[in-house]
Amino acid sequence: MSQLATAIDLSSELQRVDSAVLKRFESRSILLNAASRYLLSSGGKRMRASLALLAARLLGEPDAERALNIATAIEMIHAASLVHDDLIDTADVRRGRPTVHSKWGGNVALMVGDYLFALAAEQMAEASDPRIIKTLARGVVRICEAELSPVTDVVPLQRTLEQYFAKIGGKTAALFECAAESGMMVGGGNDREVEALRQFGYEIGLAFQIVDDILDFTADEQTLGKPAGHDLQEGTITLPVIYAVEMGASEVVREAAQTFEPSPELVAAAVAEVRRICATKRAFADAERLVANAVKRLAIFPDSAAKDALIELAELVLRRKM
Amino acid sequence: MSQLATAIDLSSELQRVDSAVLKRFESRSILLNAASRYLLSSGGKRMRASLALLAARLLGEPDAERALNIATAIEMIHAASLVHDDLIDTADVRRGRPTVHSKWGGNVALMVGDYLFALAAEQMAEASDPRIIKTLARGVVRICEAELSPVTDVVPLQRTLEQYFAKIGGKTAALFECAAESGMMVGGGNDREVEALRQFGYEIGLAFQIVDDILDFTADEQTLGKPAGHDLQEGTITLPVIYAVEMGASEVVREAAQTFEPSPELVAAAVAEVRRICATKRAFADAERLVANAVKRLAIFPDSAAKDALIELAELVLRRKM
Repeated sequence: MSQLATAIDLSSELQRVDSAVLKRFESRSILLNAASRYLLSSGGKRMRASLALLAARLLGEPDAERALNIATAIEMIHAASLVHDDLIDTADVRRGRPTVHSKWGGNVALMVGDYLFALAAEQMAEASDPRIIKTLARGVVRICEAELSPVTDVVPLQRTLEQYFAKIGGKTAALFECAAESGMMVGGGNDREVEALRQFGYEIGLAFQIVDDILDFTADEQTLGKPAGHDLQEGTITLPVIYAVEMGASEVVREAAQTFEPSPELVAAAVAEVRRICATKRAFADAERLVANAVKRLAIFPDSAAKDALIELAELVLRRKM
Repeated sequence: MSQLATAIDLSSELQRVDSAVLKRFESRSILLNAASRYLLSSGGKRMRASLALLAARLLGEPDAERALNIATAIEMIHAASLVHDDLIDTADVRRGRPTVHSKWGGNVALMVGDYLFALAAEQMAEASDPRIIKTLARGVVRICEAELSPVTDVVPLQRTLEQYFAKIGGKTAALFECAAESGMMVGGGNDREVEALRQFGYEIGLAFQIVDDILDFTADEQTLGKPAGHDLQEGTITLPVIYAVEMGASEVVREAAQTFEPSPELVAAAVAEVRRICATKRAFADAERLVANAVKRLAIFPDSAAKDALIELAELVLRRKM
């Protein structure tokens, strides 16, 4: 995350997170080692680790070791949930590289995920704060719930928005929330401060996923590492689609959203229509509002480099291109 | 486990474990609730919970709440690993009932397993002893490793035995070991006492799996809930097969063990040959030796009802019929 270098330099800490993660991969199973290393070396931005590390610093210098433990556990949970998520979506490619299950098969992907969850639990035990373990375990529970909660239709608006926010709230925002919240716990925050960070994390997590869902319509195939309209192709209804229908898009959008395994032509037509009607702009306005709210949560904290960096991180969520 | 009633009555405690498990299933996901309840109500013997509860009592009355927490977490980990194991083995039936993935599909089975692991982590946080969390997390790591460690051939004997014991050591014995070890931690044992229980759990866990592997050859289809020779059918090499080949069984045994998807006729012929040559008796002698060793580990503890019950539990492993 070199983009954050102006306010605070996390690079050496993030490197320590990466080596802490890799150090854990000393399994007797060659396959588990190989697949775990492959997964963790696939160039993630370590957003969640950064969030935890910065939240921990908001009230002064935290216990660096404990902050690192949390950040490491969170990145492991994130990797575990990605590998299981890809297995459920039967996604062959992530960040332009073959997924673990397409490279080694579903059984390895299943076990690598379980293995990383277990390593994360072990890592959390090092932090030895039961509140943090509970927070992260609850985060995983919410990820599981969200995986099994589909957005069932694009209308009626009220219901579909509820389903969408419930889904991305678990799938993505839960772990951002846990990262910020547990970081603040390590940093010694009181209940009000922990709650402020929880909401900060939740809101930027929602914004992160909304931007992700927008990019699936606006980014080119090379940047995405997969064709645009991938979500529609997979039957996943996201905010731009919901808004497009609400804004009176042609029938092609709803048709693509409701057809089981729509043709690439139908998906391409729906993508063009979502763009034409500027539904992604309306979705982006929601993301901006969420980030603005999140930043306001930080008002209760004294000014500091960590606070500036958290604000930067929140705004970075809106600027990301992939 | 009414069989243990003579030495000590665990029934009310095991009922509390069951209700503690069920109480945790308050997910917002209807599917997660339904599948988790289904899984946990499928009539397991709660061997691992009993082991933890009895180990905790070996030095006197333990903190009942903490012992219960551990026992509950262990049963959840056990259930999670079963549901993922069935997914890997594509087993349609367990204990005579459809498995979760054959009833609800692979994605639900995947998420139910993750969900139960997360609930177990949350439950462990209640125990708030980092040593115990580490022990159980390490147990899950070993289960994952074992899932991906096949027994590759029936010969040479030395290598195949090493592979077999490594496999069942992780797949089954690891969780027995964790149960006994963490129970003793709750019970306030010193390092030597914790180590004795760890080995006790490990040895009866190995014996448990050996008996399981024997039953796959000797029990009838009705008792097993699946046809005899199921392991051979699935390409899993177990101790009776290894010994049968070592004892000079006809070529049909090795052929069945090495053929990819052997015919039911080939499997039936191999099962008959393994029985004829009494390879299961030799495997059973190993299980008896392991149980005898396990019981000796308890010599360092004063006589008590809990000790008698642990000895009974160890011997019960040899007597089980399914």
